[in-house]
Amino acid sequence: MRLTVLSDYSLRVLMYLAARPDRLATIQEIARAYAISENHLMKVVHGLAKGGYIETVRGRGGGMRLAGPADGITVGAVLRTVEEDFAIVECLGNQDTCRITKACRLKRVLQLALAAFMAELDQWTLADLVSRPKALLDALDIEAR
Amino acid sequence: MRLTVLSDYSLRVLMYLAARPDRLATIQEIARAYAISENHLMKVVHGLAKGGYIETVRGRGGGMRLAGPADGITVGAVLRTVEEDFAIVECLGNQDTCRITKACRLKRVLQLALAAFMAELDQWTLADLVSRPKALLDALDIEAR
Repeated sequence: MRLTVLSDYSLRVLMYLAARPDRLATIQEIARAYAISENHLMKVVHGLAKGGYIETVRGRGGGMRLAGPADGITVGAVLRTVEEDFAIVECLGNQDTCRITKACRLKRVLQLALAAFMAELDQWTLADLVSRPKALLDALDIEAR
Repeated sequence: MRLTVLSDYSLRVLMYLAARPDRLATIQEIARAYAISENHLMKVVHGLAKGGYIETVRGRGGGMRLAGPADGITVGAVLRTVEEDFAIVECLGNQDTCRITKACRLKRVLQLALAAFMAELDQWTLADLVSRPKALLDALDIEAR
């Protein structure tokens, strides 16, 4: 059971921005910091901008930043926006061919478990994730400013 | 975020057996009932037998049945046995290359969410899932005996 890479990278980008709130960041520097592909990140950043989590400033010296305070963005909210597939099993998705769906109680049980998973993630904000920004920036081998 | 097909099919096989506790079932009939591949099911059945959830009787008239009462087998326990990958993101798995793992709090948050997911599944037994066995057997288009 895994989140998509898109979700994983989305959270990493938001943590990066939350750890350095006073400046604009570029896709290039984030890709370099995490040692991941710029192409992947472009799609991630597009999704985050569309979801209203980040805003971008064009032109020379431009880049991206969080669109609002880090303590107002929960992990749960971000995943609901960017995770493409929360169908834990076939019958929770769009392409259900299981013959017992109508009589099956497993579907409901898995929905309850997923709700418990998301309820936990709704308790945590980006600010909680970067409450020690220096440690995070050290790990990324970048300066705080 | 999806469970593996192996986990999905494992639960389906156990529900089938729990719905018809007084007889032995064959891979062929379960494959036919769910319209899924016998090859897939062979691997599933092997895993369930190895995990101690089912027992098989060889020879003519043989087949498989639950190894214990359905109300003693939780969905959570089954998934812990058969799901191959509970690494929600890279850093929870064996092949972690993320540069911020040591400084990152997301890992702990996702572990808490996974624990909440499993805690819910630990509340439900196979007996709960097939508490209306007739509806299930009707959906599978098979007789109760």
